[in-house]
Amino acid sequence: MLNPIKIGLLGLGTVGGGVVNVLQRNAREISRRAGRDIQVTHASVRDLNKSRLCNTEDIVLTEQPMSLVNNPEIDVVVELIGGTTRARDLVLKAIANGKHVVTANKALIALHGNEIFDEAQKQGVIVAFEAAVAGGIPIIKTIREGLSGNEIEWLAGIINGTTNFILTEMREKGRAFDDVLIEAQELGYAESDPTFDIEGVDAAHKLTILAAIAFGVPLNFEATYTEGITRIEPIDVEYAEQFGYRIKHLGFARRTAQGVEMRVHPALVPEGRLLANVDGVMNAVLVYGDAVGPTLHYGAGAGSEPTASAVVADLVDVVRSLTVDPENRVPHLAFQPDTITKNQRFLGIEDIQSAYYLRMEADDLPGVLAHVASILSESGISIEAVSQKEPRTGETQVNIVLLTHRVQEKLLNEAIVRIEALPDIRGEIMRIRLESLSQ
Amino acid sequence: MLNPIKIGLLGLGTVGGGVVNVLQRNAREISRRAGRDIQVTHASVRDLNKSRLCNTEDIVLTEQPMSLVNNPEIDVVVELIGGTTRARDLVLKAIANGKHVVTANKALIALHGNEIFDEAQKQGVIVAFEAAVAGGIPIIKTIREGLSGNEIEWLAGIINGTTNFILTEMREKGRAFDDVLIEAQELGYAESDPTFDIEGVDAAHKLTILAAIAFGVPLNFEATYTEGITRIEPIDVEYAEQFGYRIKHLGFARRTAQGVEMRVHPALVPEGRLLANVDGVMNAVLVYGDAVGPTLHYGAGAGSEPTASAVVADLVDVVRSLTVDPENRVPHLAFQPDTITKNQRFLGIEDIQSAYYLRMEADDLPGVLAHVASILSESGISIEAVSQKEPRTGETQVNIVLLTHRVQEKLLNEAIVRIEALPDIRGEIMRIRLESLSQ
Repeated sequence: MLNPIKIGLLGLGTVGGGVVNVLQRNAREISRRAGRDIQVTHASVRDLNKSRLCNTEDIVLTEQPMSLVNNPEIDVVVELIGGTTRARDLVLKAIANGKHVVTANKALIALHGNEIFDEAQKQGVIVAFEAAVAGGIPIIKTIREGLSGNEIEWLAGIINGTTNFILTEMREKGRAFDDVLIEAQELGYAESDPTFDIEGVDAAHKLTILAAIAFGVPLNFEATYTEGITRIEPIDVEYAEQFGYRIKHLGFARRTAQGVEMRVHPALVPEGRLLANVDGVMNAVLVYGDAVGPTLHYGAGAGSEPTASAVVADLVDVVRSLTVDPENRVPHLAFQPDTITKNQRFLGIEDIQSAYYLRMEADDLPGVLAHVASILSESGISIEAVSQKEPRTGETQVNIVLLTHRVQEKLLNEAIVRIEALPDIRGEIMRIRLESLSQ
Repeated sequence: MLNPIKIGLLGLGTVGGGVVNVLQRNAREISRRAGRDIQVTHASVRDLNKSRLCNTEDIVLTEQPMSLVNNPEIDVVVELIGGTTRARDLVLKAIANGKHVVTANKALIALHGNEIFDEAQKQGVIVAFEAAVAGGIPIIKTIREGLSGNEIEWLAGIINGTTNFILTEMREKGRAFDDVLIEAQELGYAESDPTFDIEGVDAAHKLTILAAIAFGVPLNFEATYTEGITRIEPIDVEYAEQFGYRIKHLGFARRTAQGVEMRVHPALVPEGRLLANVDGVMNAVLVYGDAVGPTLHYGAGAGSEPTASAVVADLVDVVRSLTVDPENRVPHLAFQPDTITKNQRFLGIEDIQSAYYLRMEADDLPGVLAHVASILSESGISIEAVSQKEPRTGETQVNIVLLTHRVQEKLLNEAIVRIEALPDIRGEIMRIRLESLSQ
């Protein structure tokens, strides 16, 4: 057997510790597959004196990550420090030094991937990032290689465990958003600053990556519409359920003749769909290919060992590709670099088509619903279902809830402005997109 | 760009026609990924005068498959004729001629794979078989490459669309097995001789392949326990539902300290599991890895273009591997050939552990249930749930239905013999395994 391949880890926290543990525990199984041992020989840490998740006996630790990147003994650098500034410098330097890179850093790839893959291409090295999207689910490999015969038409994913946990708890226990968020933080499912998760930024990073490899377009985080779950109220979860839907925080990407759409937002999903039944912190991605039809890929989207599972799979791939002519490798973004559509048009959110859930408070007067319906009708928006309940004793306001058929978002927005201007309507209209995910 | 790669198809029926259609329709998308055009230049057919699913203008047709296998112009042979005799001869000859092979033939791989991969290894060619298991779902790639960091503990799959369609119809519409089978044949979901599907042989071929690549053991179809769905009655589907379960036809493989178990049979699955909600002709495979935990992979398990999707993905992989040193390629059976456990112990069905659903007819006499329970208790079998209904007017027999905790099958069989010997019990006991799929 060949010499062991030598790995340097940047970061030895939750994921780094998991990588070391998995490589040590499954050493035999992994080398039976890879045909070669994979050894973590070096790791950079923030504080040498901190206690670790893993055994570091055979690992040289340093507080200088750049020294590791410049160390000629190391074959592959695994970047697990997160962030986009220092991580970018380290990854670019590793590439310049001719090292292969594995990273779990979705922000880095979504924001700087075009530059990073360009450099990697020039240097003939691999930058692998399976762990950057949906943790342990091998979704990058599935789209890039497993579905390579398809024109991918669209994909939809639950790609943030924190928001999925919160929405699951809200539905199962009727709890309020703020209340569940605190629990999620206590359980370690949400950061102390949860903004990136609950505002959809983390999911948007991942969706940007998925869209690029599905459609052969450049990474374009700025074009990804991003909306979080903070406005979802228990009553919306309840109404959705009455209509036969569940509210999920989705990343959705589609290629149409008009352009590529990428959007992250809460959405009503029919309760019978598998995706609607992906609960708690689990992730799943539904991919629709023109030949294969719908496929769904489900698993743990985060956590020490699930993420390590993806990092190690990338390491095995890298080991196998070491002696391969760079042009015969699987391209970083699934498509050969010179075939990526440079001048791709991306759609703004007002250009997309969707169905919608609308909830509004109205004075309990005869004719309000008729007014609302006639405005929608004038905008060419058909109503799929409607619910208006008698006000409770002592209340004079009612909730009107409507599901619309598919319509261009711009038209819906114009109708909403007109409806909100009606004297019988109180406050803002709650609007949630509805995706049937059927085709 | 390099010259197009030239493909010869053995068989131009449903799957072969799909392969040609997908390669033609998605030619640009596929070469953007593969970096090379993939062209079907030759195809062998049974009857030159038959009409085709696809355009054959640029394809040389022949009724002599061996002439195609011996044609030096062809780089890759795609075997789609099925069966295990002529297909084996053709595949071995293609390998001997130094050609790469892609096949969708599960029986061929399950029964002759060890021999075929040995020969391929000697000749330094690739034999790819993604389409042999679960149609368009890239489950071979997922297990072999996407989860390569894991020790796979077990897997469970709905890997036969015909039986899943029949069980889904039985549950949703309360229909009888025979009745649905006729409809499945009319819809083209079942063959005119449906034995291979309904008796579980097709699923057993696929499970044999999945177990080999998951655990690094030789293909061993003979060791796979195989039981079909013909004995399942509507009343069993109904009782299962009352207890919160659905009956699915599962392939199940597990590695334990005692040996590897491989079994195909109907099973009760908790209704909340995603796998229990995979309906109609769709397939899904649940894989449990020690690092990643459970992952599920869902999609179309058969059909012209879903199967073609897998064949084309294999072709793209082959194109990329053409210049790769054979020892750096992904091993055929996921593990390096010299590390496959040659003397692996496989468990017989009496050695496995499972929970069970038992249904028996009993005279409506006091004390019958007590007799049954005491026999189970003497065999160390705990009862999880029980249902005994009052007989309908005019009937004197009751159905007793029991769910047991996990127990070794041998012990259960001994208890069943004793229970069937009770004077109050009429006829044979219906026994269905129950898999919670939780860990």
